[in-house]
Amino acid sequence: MKRLTQTGLAAAALIALPQLGLAQEAEAAAPGFDEIGPYIMTTLLFCMAGFLVFFMAAGFAMLEGGLVRSKNVTMQMTKNIALYSIAAIMYWFMGFNLMYPGDFNGYVGSFFSPTALDPVGVAAADADLGYASIGSDFFFQLVFVAATASIVSGALAERIKLWPFLAFVVLLTGVLYPISGSWQWGGGWLSEAGFSDFAGSTVVHSVGGWAALAGAIVLGPRLGKYDKDGKVHPMPGSNLALATLGTFILWLGWFGFNGGSQLAMGTVGDVSDVSRIFANTNMAAAAGAVTALILTQVMYKKPDLTMVLNGALAGLVSITAEPLAPTLFGSLWIGAIGGVIVVLTVPLLDKLKIDDVVGAIPVHLFAGIWGTIAVVFYNGDASLGTQLLGIAAYGVFTFIGSIVVWFILKAVFGIRVDEETEINGLDMGELGMEAYPEFSKG
Amino acid sequence: MKRLTQTGLAAAALIALPQLGLAQEAEAAAPGFDEIGPYIMTTLLFCMAGFLVFFMAAGFAMLEGGLVRSKNVTMQMTKNIALYSIAAIMYWFMGFNLMYPGDFNGYVGSFFSPTALDPVGVAAADADLGYASIGSDFFFQLVFVAATASIVSGALAERIKLWPFLAFVVLLTGVLYPISGSWQWGGGWLSEAGFSDFAGSTVVHSVGGWAALAGAIVLGPRLGKYDKDGKVHPMPGSNLALATLGTFILWLGWFGFNGGSQLAMGTVGDVSDVSRIFANTNMAAAAGAVTALILTQVMYKKPDLTMVLNGALAGLVSITAEPLAPTLFGSLWIGAIGGVIVVLTVPLLDKLKIDDVVGAIPVHLFAGIWGTIAVVFYNGDASLGTQLLGIAAYGVFTFIGSIVVWFILKAVFGIRVDEETEINGLDMGELGMEAYPEFSKG
Amino acid sequence: MKRLTQTGLAAAALIALPQLGLAQEAEAAAPGFDEIGPYIMTTLLFCMAGFLVFFMAAGFAMLEGGLVRSKNVTMQMTKNIALYSIAAIMYWFMGFNLMYPGDFNGYVGSFFSPTALDPVGVAAADADLGYASIGSDFFFQLVFVAATASIVSGALAERIKLWPFLAFVVLLTGVLYPISGSWQWGGGWLSEAGFSDFAGSTVVHSVGGWAALAGAIVLGPRLGKYDKDGKVHPMPGSNLALATLGTFILWLGWFGFNGGSQLAMGTVGDVSDVSRIFANTNMAAAAGAVTALILTQVMYKKPDLTMVLNGALAGLVSITAEPLAPTLFGSLWIGAIGGVIVVLTVPLLDKLKIDDVVGAIPVHLFAGIWGTIAVVFYNGDASLGTQLLGIAAYGVFTFIGSIVVWFILKAVFGIRVDEETEINGLDMGELGMEAYPEFSKG
Repeated sequence: MKRLTQTGLAAAALIALPQLGLAQEAEAAAPGFDEIGPYIMTTLLFCMAGFLVFFMAAGFAMLEGGLVRSKNVTMQMTKNIALYSIAAIMYWFMGFNLMYPGDFNGYVGSFFSPTALDPVGVAAADADLGYASIGSDFFFQLVFVAATASIVSGALAERIKLWPFLAFVVLLTGVLYPISGSWQWGGGWLSEAGFSDFAGSTVVHSVGGWAALAGAIVLGPRLGKYDKDGKVHPMPGSNLALATLGTFILWLGWFGFNGGSQLAMGTVGDVSDVSRIFANTNMAAAAGAVTALILTQVMYKKPDLTMVLNGALAGLVSITAEPLAPTLFGSLWIGAIGGVIVVLTVPLLDKLKIDDVVGAIPVHLFAGIWGTIAVVFYNGDASLGTQLLGIAAYGVFTFIGSIVVWFILKAVFGIRVDEETEINGLDMGELGMEAYPEFSKG
Repeated sequence: MKRLTQTGLAAAALIALPQLGLAQEAEAAAPGFDEIGPYIMTTLLFCMAGFLVFFMAAGFAMLEGGLVRSKNVTMQMTKNIALYSIAAIMYWFMGFNLMYPGDFNGYVGSFFSPTALDPVGVAAADADLGYASIGSDFFFQLVFVAATASIVSGALAERIKLWPFLAFVVLLTGVLYPISGSWQWGGGWLSEAGFSDFAGSTVVHSVGGWAALAGAIVLGPRLGKYDKDGKVHPMPGSNLALATLGTFILWLGWFGFNGGSQLAMGTVGDVSDVSRIFANTNMAAAAGAVTALILTQVMYKKPDLTMVLNGALAGLVSITAEPLAPTLFGSLWIGAIGGVIVVLTVPLLDKLKIDDVVGAIPVHLFAGIWGTIAVVFYNGDASLGTQLLGIAAYGVFTFIGSIVVWFILKAVFGIRVDEETEINGLDMGELGMEAYPEFSKG
Repeated sequence: MKRLTQTGLAAAALIALPQLGLAQEAEAAAPGFDEIGPYIMTTLLFCMAGFLVFFMAAGFAMLEGGLVRSKNVTMQMTKNIALYSIAAIMYWFMGFNLMYPGDFNGYVGSFFSPTALDPVGVAAADADLGYASIGSDFFFQLVFVAATASIVSGALAERIKLWPFLAFVVLLTGVLYPISGSWQWGGGWLSEAGFSDFAGSTVVHSVGGWAALAGAIVLGPRLGKYDKDGKVHPMPGSNLALATLGTFILWLGWFGFNGGSQLAMGTVGDVSDVSRIFANTNMAAAAGAVTALILTQVMYKKPDLTMVLNGALAGLVSITAEPLAPTLFGSLWIGAIGGVIVVLTVPLLDKLKIDDVVGAIPVHLFAGIWGTIAVVFYNGDASLGTQLLGIAAYGVFTFIGSIVVWFILKAVFGIRVDEETEINGLDMGELGMEAYPEFSKG
């Protein structure tokens, strides 16, 4: 971190050539901004959007940590930092090149090709000037796969064992997500078929939702959650301030999630589109939150904060498949319907005795499906048939793939903690460490 | 999110023209960075500053959630996410074009003109190349109005009803703030008169402070806060870690708040000014915090963390009217006086039996007035008379406008929860949901 | 914050010259992006990386606040916001120009030269176009020194008095860190000798670690931490959700810490390197976390969340000396060894009865040494001998300098709270304010 680097000196040399003639000669060696500007801006976009989406890992951790009971908070924290870390390693080891295989059969690329970055100080002549650096692209894609895994973590909280869960994460982030991702974003068969999913309502969110749904079915509900006669026993989250913080962090990260998916920032049109996506994304989240607020007031006479939080998230998921084309008003109603979906489907899952601790399935799967369908309203290139095909393809593949993995894990290792551990909390039973050891339980 | 977009391909085509002659021809279609670079950089500035200021919504939520008692935390979270969401919708629906009406009478623009963004993939020829994209500008302005509403939320905590508060937010963010904002930032009469408020010590912070003051007067203090004989009963915040986190998040967001208000980043002068604002903003916050630390040690023999937090915030508010012109030393003493103001005026409000739960009025109103006056020390274009005129104009308009709204809301709906709800906490009484259901109350 | 600034108008004027001939003439007055682009991008890099590293102050506060017992949380918050603020002031007053003295003897520059920023709206001709604005550079360097002080704060928690600690911070951030920093990053003797430390495994992290170690020795362990027979009594942290949040924030900030240390972003090579650093930094953290997870499972049969958090941080510290040159696989194993170091050396310190409350010494000092050595594996310009020389030089200077300061502070003021205060908690004893007054202690 010396203040004048080699590069700095080179740049200094460059600017010491004021005459246009000399500048032209220098350009042969160092291309000008008209050539390299878009590459620089897009690489920066990926870095910036990447750190925002990275921070969503913290958002998920806080949201989930706030919505579980205090006896399971240490476990939820452990799972969230571990799943992000595993995703980072698996996506390097297999995922990235499996998802973006270049020219391939359209269904499955090649396994076991770890990611290699551009060389240090890559020359303009060796860089992909029409796009961005490999490092930035890899980092940006990597943080997406981690989000998928986080969705699963929330739904299955408070009863799943740590290591089988992490084993699932290995397969989800290294195999399942990259294969299905390649169908669309890797230029595979769904992309060829005309499926449209800008930032991943389906490719990321519903995939996480399907994997969570499969897990929730195999795992079963928490002890005492559902009576034999169908009565539902609420198990309130231990820290709603934390859950709110997590939601705000996710909302923040979503600007990177959707904005970065423009995949370019070096032209007037691209940077304007990025900002348009920011505005639309924000509007959809706001609309989802307000809708859930009003709807819970009307339905239950009392606004429900956890629904408002999930309403905002559902608004975000809903706009993710097409955050660019809609007007602000379009984003408003698309997000608002996301909020409605959450409020209506959370009790529905309970009726089916599918225990989703944080509401991840309504938010990421149901609103994800809605958002993918909603593409057709503002994007003239999308057709309802193809959107439904894509939704079904991701659903079938991920749900079946996941349920097979969950069953195998269950058969071989067991995926559920024993009753005593569940009642006393996973923190003491599995980890021997409480999250709030000094705050007595009411 | 495919990896080679249309845009990418276009850029790739462009860079395939190495000869200067061809590049010049291409430029006719695609203008070069000398023309579009400033637009791209400024649009990026608004996006980046915008997400930083967005995150201040989380900062206010955490600060306020940490400074109220645990029985009111769910309510405070609900208010904060709801007010941000409402602000986002109202500012689209009315606020933005009311605040920036273009050519207007200087006092009030036209209502009911929802914001329309640039078209998707706007061409350089159709974009405002001397400024930035509409989407980025709208997003950046939107997050400011939300900050104003957050200020009110903190002051009136622990006794105001949810829906009347949100009704006030609708009017504040859709009408009051945009109208008064147009006087200065929309090019209205105060701007013509020479008033100077770079990033909103008055336009944003004191407006929030005046609205909060009006509300606090109409609403009255919390039960038990003031004895008949004038004794003040402290009601300590429930979570100072959260309050500290909120303060750090606000500090972070302020780099966007002040830095983004440079409104340009595409020249050497502008980007350097943005960085100068970063350095000054940071210095003022640090000085406010250290001053409050020392002053509370001297006055009370014990440093007071909540005063240190508010000292930092007061430093930030103080530098907001002019974060560019001062030297670092100037920022230090301007911020330090902000810290003094907070330490001295928090007890003053208590003497007047005005109950401001989080110290929002000292921080945002009193330090905001100070910061607006302090402009004259480093900005030669500002005059004390005009600064006082601006302060008074915003004060009169916002205080009267707010108090009228508060009185109407009080008369029509009632704005205060009943005594039982206040004593038991708004969380159970109004929302039926505790923030920390497992942590027993001491 | 009016929407058309002077600058905007100037830019608008510039783009109104479509013909190349006129544009060339305009260029004489306003240089084009080929000349100013790198300066703009690098200044932006420092602003962006700067706010990320700034946010690490919140990360340290949350990590430390979560790992101390609840009776000391208010104190830990107070220390963290105060130390950041003091660092900001001292680094302006003395540190920056002491650390970057320009042409100097290579050992100590001149004291008492407060930082002066570029003038407002600096002209391209007056700016350091080969580098970045002074404001951005100063801000970026300032947030680094605060990180150093935060390291000390964690290790000495739960027993040190506030003011003597802050006095130490004054000297560390104003004198000790800048002097030793100048040896390497100011172009001093170690830089001349060929020492290599890209982003500060040694210059920042181990310096903080040495200062903390000196303090921990002089201060002694917490009451009851070690029995006479050597038995260690764990004192579990009060809020592991907060500690996890802090770790994620630090991880986020590290993208700025390491990425910004590229010190340039305006060429294809530089921006690609920044992104390469992002990817490597992320990988090292992930590897450190996973390694600590597995290792604690193997060694203790139960994964230990606090070790996982510290493992991630140790991975980050390990890659900080050379985040650019390694491959992703290199970053993986360098980070993984960082994780091993933490798991093995935390108990070692306990054996030596050196009480480091949050594990700061293993993370920042031991992993910092490892990271500095690891440079030789991927950076051909580094030699083991010189790396060891640098490590030793920083160790001797900082440890001796710190221990002298600690002894003087101890002799003159006393640095440790009295027994009663320590037992009842520093919050009530020193500050009279609890962090969680309503949550009863278990």
